[in-house]
Amino acid sequence: MMLKSHDCGTLTKEQVGESVVLNGWVQGWRDFGGILFIDLRDRTGIMQIVFNPAFSGQALEIGNRARNEYVLAVKGKVVQRDPVTFNPNLPTGEIEVQVQEVEILNASKTPPFPIEDGVEVDEALRLKYRYLDLRRPEMQKTLLLRSKATKVFRDFLDGNGFIEVETPILTKSTPEGARDYLVPSRVHPGEFFALPQSPQLFKQLLMVGGLERYFQVARCFRDEDLRADRQPEFTQVDIETSFLSQDQVLDMMEQLMVKLFRETIGVEIPTPFQRLTYHDAIHKYGSDKPDLRFGLEIEDVTDIVKNSEVKVFASVASSGGVIKALNAKGCASWSRKELDDLQPFASRYGGKGLAWITIKDGEWRGPIVKFLKPEEIDALTAKLGVEEGDLLCFSADKLKTAADVMGNLRLKVGRDLGLIDDSAYKFLWVVDFPLLGWDEDAKRWVAEHHPFTRPHDEDLSLFESDPGAIRAQAYDIVLNGYEVGGGSMRIFRREVQEQMFRALGFSPEEAKEKFGFFLDAFEYGTPPHGGIAFGLDRLVMLLAGRSNLRETIAFPKTASATDLLTDAPSPVVERQLEDLHIRLSGKALASQAKQAAPGEQAPAGQPAVQA
Amino acid sequence: MMLKSHDCGTLTKEQVGESVVLNGWVQGWRDFGGILFIDLRDRTGIMQIVFNPAFSGQALEIGNRARNEYVLAVKGKVVQRDPVTFNPNLPTGEIEVQVQEVEILNASKTPPFPIEDGVEVDEALRLKYRYLDLRRPEMQKTLLLRSKATKVFRDFLDGNGFIEVETPILTKSTPEGARDYLVPSRVHPGEFFALPQSPQLFKQLLMVGGLERYFQVARCFRDEDLRADRQPEFTQVDIETSFLSQDQVLDMMEQLMVKLFRETIGVEIPTPFQRLTYHDAIHKYGSDKPDLRFGLEIEDVTDIVKNSEVKVFASVASSGGVIKALNAKGCASWSRKELDDLQPFASRYGGKGLAWITIKDGEWRGPIVKFLKPEEIDALTAKLGVEEGDLLCFSADKLKTAADVMGNLRLKVGRDLGLIDDSAYKFLWVVDFPLLGWDEDAKRWVAEHHPFTRPHDEDLSLFESDPGAIRAQAYDIVLNGYEVGGGSMRIFRREVQEQMFRALGFSPEEAKEKFGFFLDAFEYGTPPHGGIAFGLDRLVMLLAGRSNLRETIAFPKTASATDLLTDAPSPVVERQLEDLHIRLSGKALASQAKQAAPGEQAPAGQPAVQA
Repeated sequence: MMLKSHDCGTLTKEQVGESVVLNGWVQGWRDFGGILFIDLRDRTGIMQIVFNPAFSGQALEIGNRARNEYVLAVKGKVVQRDPVTFNPNLPTGEIEVQVQEVEILNASKTPPFPIEDGVEVDEALRLKYRYLDLRRPEMQKTLLLRSKATKVFRDFLDGNGFIEVETPILTKSTPEGARDYLVPSRVHPGEFFALPQSPQLFKQLLMVGGLERYFQVARCFRDEDLRADRQPEFTQVDIETSFLSQDQVLDMMEQLMVKLFRETIGVEIPTPFQRLTYHDAIHKYGSDKPDLRFGLEIEDVTDIVKNSEVKVFASVASSGGVIKALNAKGCASWSRKELDDLQPFASRYGGKGLAWITIKDGEWRGPIVKFLKPEEIDALTAKLGVEEGDLLCFSADKLKTAADVMGNLRLKVGRDLGLIDDSAYKFLWVVDFPLLGWDEDAKRWVAEHHPFTRPHDEDLSLFESDPGAIRAQAYDIVLNGYEVGGGSMRIFRREVQEQMFRALGFSPEEAKEKFGFFLDAFEYGTPPHGGIAFGLDRLVMLLAGRSNLRETIAFPKTASATDLLTDAPSPVVERQLEDLHIRLSGKALASQAKQAAPGEQAPAGQPAVQA
Repeated sequence: MMLKSHDCGTLTKEQVGESVVLNGWVQGWRDFGGILFIDLRDRTGIMQIVFNPAFSGQALEIGNRARNEYVLAVKGKVVQRDPVTFNPNLPTGEIEVQVQEVEILNASKTPPFPIEDGVEVDEALRLKYRYLDLRRPEMQKTLLLRSKATKVFRDFLDGNGFIEVETPILTKSTPEGARDYLVPSRVHPGEFFALPQSPQLFKQLLMVGGLERYFQVARCFRDEDLRADRQPEFTQVDIETSFLSQDQVLDMMEQLMVKLFRETIGVEIPTPFQRLTYHDAIHKYGSDKPDLRFGLEIEDVTDIVKNSEVKVFASVASSGGVIKALNAKGCASWSRKELDDLQPFASRYGGKGLAWITIKDGEWRGPIVKFLKPEEIDALTAKLGVEEGDLLCFSADKLKTAADVMGNLRLKVGRDLGLIDDSAYKFLWVVDFPLLGWDEDAKRWVAEHHPFTRPHDEDLSLFESDPGAIRAQAYDIVLNGYEVGGGSMRIFRREVQEQMFRALGFSPEEAKEKFGFFLDAFEYGTPPHGGIAFGLDRLVMLLAGRSNLRETIAFPKTASATDLLTDAPSPVVERQLEDLHIRLSGKALASQAKQAAPGEQAPAGQPAVQA
């Protein structure tokens, strides 16, 4: 077997005259008057190899048997191509290899889709043949980028005194949070491990354990119904520190992002990142993860129109709602259909309506214009900077809904108007999230982040008077409208934790039952600590300029949590379930008749034939 | 809150005169005539801090409230100690900090065991309070070493063009191998994911996918009954390459080990590592993972004693067995009891007996001596280098058993005689493992490594004539008698894979059923490839000089696969099982009456009270 001396894609004119051995896959071939040209591809790129009876008749004979995706080993001489045959599309386009010896290392069936970028292939087919999909340069580049990005995270954190610690995957089911994946225990009948939704408890315990600076590139699991940008298992870069303030954590993480973008895609990110309170993010951009690559701020016009003849404005304002406005500069030219579409657009985000006004030929037009008083028009003109050609949009609703509608409208208008620079990377921190949110169904306060999030010291007195106004020392890092990370400083003092549990309506006994060993740990000298977790899949997606998390994962699952390559999940044999002291029930019994388990044993739920 | 400007353990005389802020835990305190001395500990070490009314009366008053494991923040001046109070046991023993300000960041209950090295504490107690156990310098040092070791692996592999790729944790149950941990699917009733025993299939698919060089620090899972050195989840550094020969892989891995030992513990490992065939390892050392820190080779004396009057020698030899001998130099002085203990020692490894001869005062003594002919004694003397004071031990059995008995006896004698240099690191490769082993129960050949292991080219013809003699391109890396890694080159040619399946007794249909998608992948131009996996837990154990894998893992499980800290596994609530379309059965139903599930819902298997 002839094994490679060089890579296909990195040979240069420097090697002209040298004898090399290349290994790779046949990307394509063409015969010109008895001379065979093959594009040989490996991980690094493509090299043209030439079979000519003048070099070796035997090699040509063997080469002629090769088809696409055959694996070849060739030995030959690097030569400069005739300038008229230079291929400017290939980095190696000015040289080629004259084949003296060839070995077909392996044959290949015709692949179900061409192995090249930019080809339209059904994603299900790509996932079923992922091992072929991964041969496409774009996929290889993305996986390489992911590996590089992870390395940059590790190098930075290691350089800053963080210790990587592996925490368990087989852990305990917790009563709060999303749905756990469970793993039945064979040794302990009727008991279950849970796969971690995050290493949250363990990372805080490592701080109690005095490690001071911890990180982990951690696999996390959530058994939730999946959206396009979710995976049942995902990776986060999980970080926790002791004896640092929130500002120190945020500053350090900015340096981490700077290094990440510099060393993976060569982009310089300016620091410090903008910091926006949650309150301002919602009010100005209608989102807690605003895309700040463009301005187009939302304005609050409640004061201006609260006594308006526009009934909905007056009634919303009097019942504690808000009226939010967006000036879509230059959109007065929208068609009637586009304007009519604003109504269903608002409904999609829970809005009851969306009022609009166009300014054309100096005239305000639209259904509500006739109800506006001249002084309202003047005030709106001043507040919204109204000019000829503008489109004004209004949402009157509860703050959350109005913000959501206008935030999404802002994004739509920003995109439509081409305000977004696709090559820009705009980071910001959203800080001062509310500590507690009111659960209307349960009629109680719930933790917005988690029950161990530290409130601002100066807000502690609000536990008694106005829990909803308490600001948490919690922060999200946002990039181009995506939340790419988030974290908080944690409660470390017992009396604050007790206040928090009281606010959540947990008795000391309930708190003990829910968080037992964790609260015990906090009795033994817990240091002030806090941390953050970055969503690696999403960060890589943004670095690679892809639009889908699945493109960043070697073997992803579909929206129905299926691996189309291995066909997991799948039925198992009865004995496996017996070992685990469980059996199928409910829908599983109904569906098993349709399925067959692998191997020779009876599928689970169906007794084996007695011999 | 005063946050640290410096670490406790890294302050030096250079900082004398500087004002510093330290954060840490109270390791101990003593009052000398109204002056309070506290040893303040953080991750880096210990600093003596001094509270003196001359510096601050208020600080002293607060300091006096501190007890062991309280968390303090102190501000003060670094000063040189009075030379008579130098503490040579501390790196910081010539300086101290005069406290001007102190803040008790947190209090602590009295810990259940002292936070220091070398204290005898029941391991169960340590695991229950792992967050306190982790504060001990030895545990911190081990976790730091583990983090460092992992980083060295990554740096080396990254530097050699390997891409780290994450493979799924939620994957498919496979019919071969150890018992899988299963995860019921909520979305697909009656179907299950399995946690990976290793990323074997995925790493080979990445080679089919053209990645050429892959690695991953991979969590693996085996639901087996645990021995002292096993964990239900463990970590391996998983490596696979294309287009390299076995020798190239082994050479590269030697360089990796050299870098690992140099950069973690400063030890220079000489290369190349000794390479020993499996045949020689078994015959000379009675083990496929021999400890070569000492010699004491086992000899085969079958030819010398095959016609002996010693009945067992003759009968074993005539029935295809072997007689193995070990000369325990200088052990003729063993007591009668020690000699008698050889018999049960042999039994422990399946041996039927162990014959012995002592050479004292020039005389051969022992139960079998009278049956030995003079020419046999002469031949044994020559072969075994017999001298005054020696103890000769003999095992007559099937090769496997005799090797096992003598291999273990060799280790015992080596230890007893102090032949083992505890500071030595002796690596070796064991190569040329047999491809197939005969399963006496199933009456068929089984794969010794796995069914995709590549046989030596020159042994391919033995598939027909003598399958048991086929040598695999499989290798283990052994350090001081521990297998710390292993791997193989893989079959990549279809016709060889078919020969292998035939040898294993699989029809093409059975092979397809067992390995379906994997065999499909191999039809599309699979490159020659192979790899290795290192057991990270064990390597770290050896680097750290520990004797137990649990010491190398932050949150390990016990031998009964329990996490004593979180109390996992644990019962779950009925609704969780309903969501997963399973219910308890068998022993789980019997045991559930004894247990209560967390939260307010009814434990699984026990219907909630109807409202």
